[in-house]
Amino acid sequence: MKIGILGTGIVGATLGSKLVQLGHEVKMGSRTANNEDAMKWAKSNGAKASNGTFSDAAAFGDIVFNCTAGVVSLAALKLAGSGNLKGKVLVDVANPLDFSKGMPPTLTVCNTDSIGEQIQRTFPNVKVVKALNTMNCKVMVNPSLIPGDHNLFVAGNDAQAKAQVRDLLESFGWKEGAIIDLGDITASRGTEMFFPLWLRLYGLFPNQNFNLRIAK
Amino acid sequence: MKIGILGTGIVGATLGSKLVQLGHEVKMGSRTANNEDAMKWAKSNGAKASNGTFSDAAAFGDIVFNCTAGVVSLAALKLAGSGNLKGKVLVDVANPLDFSKGMPPTLTVCNTDSIGEQIQRTFPNVKVVKALNTMNCKVMVNPSLIPGDHNLFVAGNDAQAKAQVRDLLESFGWKEGAIIDLGDITASRGTEMFFPLWLRLYGLFPNQNFNLRIAK
Repeated sequence: MKIGILGTGIVGATLGSKLVQLGHEVKMGSRTANNEDAMKWAKSNGAKASNGTFSDAAAFGDIVFNCTAGVVSLAALKLAGSGNLKGKVLVDVANPLDFSKGMPPTLTVCNTDSIGEQIQRTFPNVKVVKALNTMNCKVMVNPSLIPGDHNLFVAGNDAQAKAQVRDLLESFGWKEGAIIDLGDITASRGTEMFFPLWLRLYGLFPNQNFNLRIAK
Repeated sequence: MKIGILGTGIVGATLGSKLVQLGHEVKMGSRTANNEDAMKWAKSNGAKASNGTFSDAAAFGDIVFNCTAGVVSLAALKLAGSGNLKGKVLVDVANPLDFSKGMPPTLTVCNTDSIGEQIQRTFPNVKVVKALNTMNCKVMVNPSLIPGDHNLFVAGNDAQAKAQVRDLLESFGWKEGAIIDLGDITASRGTEMFFPLWLRLYGLFPNQNFNLRIAK
């Protein structure tokens, strides 16, 4: 499959590398075509990895991952272009973190809205699936880092898009039963608002290799 | 121990009954001394159960539980009286849910503040310990309702108060290792902001007998 990754940070790079390892062709997009991090990433990930602008990556991908910082996601997606994204599945991994007021970060949007919903409203022709934003990126692509069962959430308005994302997540190693479908895109509020608790937990633990399990 | 319960809803009644079963003397407080639910609760829980006003319950308890709805907690605690609460441990179980705009409820405070913090700021001489607000009340008092390991969070500024609350929680059946101390009272933001995710999960499951486990 051809996959576009928007964002050149650790989340985009980790997801992009995993997707290349799984045999996909991946183009990492950024604001400029010659972003250093994106060029380095493409160079070190072989022939199936490339880079370009947000627009290039969005046009390239059959599926597109939003791995930009939540605070700039809408701007990045506008640069990616609604025409390039039209009809496609957009996996939104972002959390709307605001570091401008110091630590801990607050959320730029929450409670009555979410970045997942904002993206879906701004791009009504895109099939937004919120996923993976409740854990560190190493866990996203390698759930076996954590022993035993633990969970991953997906949310979105389009059932077929969610099924496609689930297949991709299962190829990462997530068990079918570990993926919890929370319903429509408004459930993004719940997964984004989990971040403050995640951050407190991270403060207690030696590393980010932890995740939620819903015990019942 | 003598324990005051503020609030006559299902959470207060469930916690109160458990505490009576464990041998404590419990006074349930409400806005009026003759609240019907509180009188019924006291009558059905034997000689160690009584009821009165918020002020009566706060004066009675060596430890006090805030089981009022988060949206009225500060008002209830003012009626309870800072003099009656002074120096005591207040276990804050509230979530600041606003049902006035329909379902799902939103939070009246979040992101940069929390009801736990508001209570601590309003009553600086009270030792506020946020706890138990991430699960249904049946699970609070009977963790074995859910098989396997799962977790409970405490947060507060006073280490001794948290230790006292942990002891009480262990008497409910919580294992020592299941109780995660998130740090100071600002961690209330995290546990209160978990509510939207909890609510979505509840929508998927047949009942409220589920809880978080932190897998690591």
